[in-house]
Amino acid sequence: MTLTDLSIAANAKMLPIQEVADRAGIPEEALETYGKYKAKIDIASLPPAVKQGQVVLVTAISPTPAGEGKSTVTVGLADAFKQLGESVMVALREPSLGPVMGVKGGATGGGFAQVLPMEDINLHFTGDIHAITTANNALSALIDNHLHQGNELELDPRRITWKRVLDMNDRALRNVTVGLGGPSQGVPREDGFDITVASEIMAVLCLAESLDDLKERLAQMLVGYTYDREPVTVRDLGAAGALTLLLKDAFKPNLVQTIEGTPAIIHGGPFANIAHGCNSLMATKAARRLADVVVTEAGFGADLGAEKFMHIKSRQGGFDPDAVVIVATVRALKMHGGVDKNALKEADADAVRRGMVNLAKHVDTIRQFGIEPVVALNRFVTDTEAELAEVMEWAKAEDVAIALTDVWEKGGTGGLELAKLVQQELEKPKNFSRLYEPTDSVEEKLRVIVQRVYGGADVQLTDKAKKQLAEIQKFGWDALPLCMAKTQYSLSDQPKLLGRPEGFTVTIREIIPKLGAGFLVCLTGDIMTMPGLPKQPAALNMDISDNGNAVGLF
Amino acid sequence: MTLTDLSIAANAKMLPIQEVADRAGIPEEALETYGKYKAKIDIASLPPAVKQGQVVLVTAISPTPAGEGKSTVTVGLADAFKQLGESVMVALREPSLGPVMGVKGGATGGGFAQVLPMEDINLHFTGDIHAITTANNALSALIDNHLHQGNELELDPRRITWKRVLDMNDRALRNVTVGLGGPSQGVPREDGFDITVASEIMAVLCLAESLDDLKERLAQMLVGYTYDREPVTVRDLGAAGALTLLLKDAFKPNLVQTIEGTPAIIHGGPFANIAHGCNSLMATKAARRLADVVVTEAGFGADLGAEKFMHIKSRQGGFDPDAVVIVATVRALKMHGGVDKNALKEADADAVRRGMVNLAKHVDTIRQFGIEPVVALNRFVTDTEAELAEVMEWAKAEDVAIALTDVWEKGGTGGLELAKLVQQELEKPKNFSRLYEPTDSVEEKLRVIVQRVYGGADVQLTDKAKKQLAEIQKFGWDALPLCMAKTQYSLSDQPKLLGRPEGFTVTIREIIPKLGAGFLVCLTGDIMTMPGLPKQPAALNMDISDNGNAVGLF
Repeated sequence: MTLTDLSIAANAKMLPIQEVADRAGIPEEALETYGKYKAKIDIASLPPAVKQGQVVLVTAISPTPAGEGKSTVTVGLADAFKQLGESVMVALREPSLGPVMGVKGGATGGGFAQVLPMEDINLHFTGDIHAITTANNALSALIDNHLHQGNELELDPRRITWKRVLDMNDRALRNVTVGLGGPSQGVPREDGFDITVASEIMAVLCLAESLDDLKERLAQMLVGYTYDREPVTVRDLGAAGALTLLLKDAFKPNLVQTIEGTPAIIHGGPFANIAHGCNSLMATKAARRLADVVVTEAGFGADLGAEKFMHIKSRQGGFDPDAVVIVATVRALKMHGGVDKNALKEADADAVRRGMVNLAKHVDTIRQFGIEPVVALNRFVTDTEAELAEVMEWAKAEDVAIALTDVWEKGGTGGLELAKLVQQELEKPKNFSRLYEPTDSVEEKLRVIVQRVYGGADVQLTDKAKKQLAEIQKFGWDALPLCMAKTQYSLSDQPKLLGRPEGFTVTIREIIPKLGAGFLVCLTGDIMTMPGLPKQPAALNMDISDNGNAVGLF
Repeated sequence: MTLTDLSIAANAKMLPIQEVADRAGIPEEALETYGKYKAKIDIASLPPAVKQGQVVLVTAISPTPAGEGKSTVTVGLADAFKQLGESVMVALREPSLGPVMGVKGGATGGGFAQVLPMEDINLHFTGDIHAITTANNALSALIDNHLHQGNELELDPRRITWKRVLDMNDRALRNVTVGLGGPSQGVPREDGFDITVASEIMAVLCLAESLDDLKERLAQMLVGYTYDREPVTVRDLGAAGALTLLLKDAFKPNLVQTIEGTPAIIHGGPFANIAHGCNSLMATKAARRLADVVVTEAGFGADLGAEKFMHIKSRQGGFDPDAVVIVATVRALKMHGGVDKNALKEADADAVRRGMVNLAKHVDTIRQFGIEPVVALNRFVTDTEAELAEVMEWAKAEDVAIALTDVWEKGGTGGLELAKLVQQELEKPKNFSRLYEPTDSVEEKLRVIVQRVYGGADVQLTDKAKKQLAEIQKFGWDALPLCMAKTQYSLSDQPKLLGRPEGFTVTIREIIPKLGAGFLVCLTGDIMTMPGLPKQPAALNMDISDNGNAVGLF
């Protein structure tokens, strides 16, 4: 029988969640169990913080469409730390259900480096994303009801920026008209649905530091503009209290475990393009109170996930990352070396060598933050010794710490070498610094990111973006960090420019204020905020077995 | 301080759910806790059924818009049984979140006859309704994806009957167009959203008797018709497995407790007009395995809820109700006696006397099923002695068992007299029979309901309904029970005909097959399947307190 993520998960023996909590130092009164293997953590009932665990951020090179196994390495690294006797927790994002219905492949690691119970986590989990869907759409209903009941705020129906959401891949909802059917059915207007993880509420939930902060951020969210082009916020609608009430349980981090019994906090899952792409601050902070080492990840490559982790999340949370792991794979390096994505399984050591420039740039980026990265070369069965040797030789020549990982097949044991290298970095004194301050001008912040992180030459704004920036400045919203929405496949804004492009100019097409999340989204291209299902959706292979277990989930 | 449902609930002392389960005879291995005070019951892990508890159905006279306190009496009656030393459980529907955001007032009983934790139950509870929303909309996404990816089944986009849903009062979503924006954004078509409790999946979940039955019913659901007007089902789309997987946890009944510690199963909440309006069969069956007496309710008055309980739910479940309680109030009787709804607080014993005809008809209806009903006269502070006396005298004259209930204020103690009368009925031999067989013709089934339950003269079908019926007969779908969608305010199909109208003809405007639920919905008027928010939505008063508790929920 072929081993699949689901079959490995189904055969794993889980600890009762109370035991996981107990080992992690979470007292019973802080635990709200959801079934036998999931729990929410009531932060207020945790003992006073006596420690502040070190944070290991796992990021990656510019990925292939299939991904490089970043979550798998994150889980395997945590299990390796546990094998080494460290007090460790892993903090991850919650998977969105929409893509689970579309394309085979989960977001809970893989093989013997998974978090469990994977089928619950990949389906409804503890309901956090459903609560966000509900809060988002309650706000939409209140907006349309406001229009219908007299529109006291004089909201311009053509300038409502708040969209509805569903946790579903549903292209037919991207552009809709609502309020049709006559005067008793609401006010007709154009609208659209995003996938729930693209909701600003998801970003807000992931950056808030307390229930009060959550409510304040929700109140600050922009919903649209009046006929006079004045901004209208959730505060103006009086809806922040209800939204907070709908989110009060979703705001509590979720405790689960890895396949090796390492405590894992899985909480929040904002998009990695129009949002910042990492688990909630509450989760990271809870994990730091409980463990000496917290292994976490950020979406896409280091140019996106790590950059935002540095400038948005960790800045907001008032902490610095203590070590950074960059996941690389032979297949992605080959792609950067010019191999077509359909030929990545064929051996080509020369292509690997040519593709090293992409990894080199990400190493350079992390070094600019004052951190010496460790590279995890995540091994696949198709990799040849010659290909692997290319990477190891490059690392030796460039004085980059590197370890082969084989965590899919071997679990924590396959990440021991990596864990030891990371331990060495954690023991060194730190010299961390960020590349920009939020108070820098928007143009300056953009230039820093494009030149120092992407390795580009310059940045330009479209006329539309210039107009939006002028408005942002007029309303005094410009002293916020930037949230770059760029293709993950290239260091540039052009998906097909692989390797290490140089001399390119990044075009900012739009700048969208997200006042609750507290960042300005800078769009460099068409960003899909509502995915579609493929011709053969994964859902059509799903079923339940006679004993009620999942079939065909992955 | 004024006592409110929320303040009473907040001050109540709850038992840990494990203790509630233990007292109810639910072994620990059958319990999946959701926080400290909620759990799902894994039916497969219950001990073999040794008992089949008696079922007490609580129904009502034709209600006022504010409702007559049916859920409150149901809870109070169960607590009274407990005080009398009976082994008792209460089975109720899950509240929909949409209306909670709109109009102040919950669906978990009230005062000292509530189920707890009320704020959880009224918000996300254990996520069942969110799971139904997700399954419903996953099906919609698969339908639109099928159209977009080549439409192999030749589904006619103009004849798709499956609608999307949200658990929200959102009138702007009643009529929408989807798939706009060009060829890569799907196929444009008209669509609409219902509130989730109106989804056929809710009815299916509430009538299925096993996971296999659930899957089979989901497969049978009609989604639309081909260009050749042939029916297309979920089975044709291949989506039944995925939908079942999405519902596997939602299918498990939820255990909570009343304010007096009586075990309560709250599970499923189908609409009481286009669906059958009572909690799941799984819940009722689980409760019957665990308790000697199960107190349950059905939506609206006896003409709707009780009739459907007899002909749809209990027939499907293979059991007969053992006793029926009809809840009446002085204020509703006054309304039936001709008093304007804004003057119901003014004493008017004559109006009460005139209004007794409505109660008399519901008593007559229940007697036709071979059950001698017990009337619960649910007392309000504005009731005068003279008004109450009118009802008691009528009952004495008509030989109807009646008890005053005061459960909002006194809890189970306020329902003791009622419980004793119900006990007497439970001890009597039964002579239960239903009024029609599913195999009777649709016209015959309609005539029986209109004449014997509503007390009307005749029934007529519009041309549209006749055409639909011909199609239903052509496809062989006519041997199903009927699910009447009629105004709850009148015994007739005209909301303003109060009291006991006679000689009326009911018009069936549409007949809609629900092949998964297994009934034919007969619409007698415009039935609102997506409510709207009022001018001042309850949501605008909601908030959280400093310690994270709900404020302004009720």
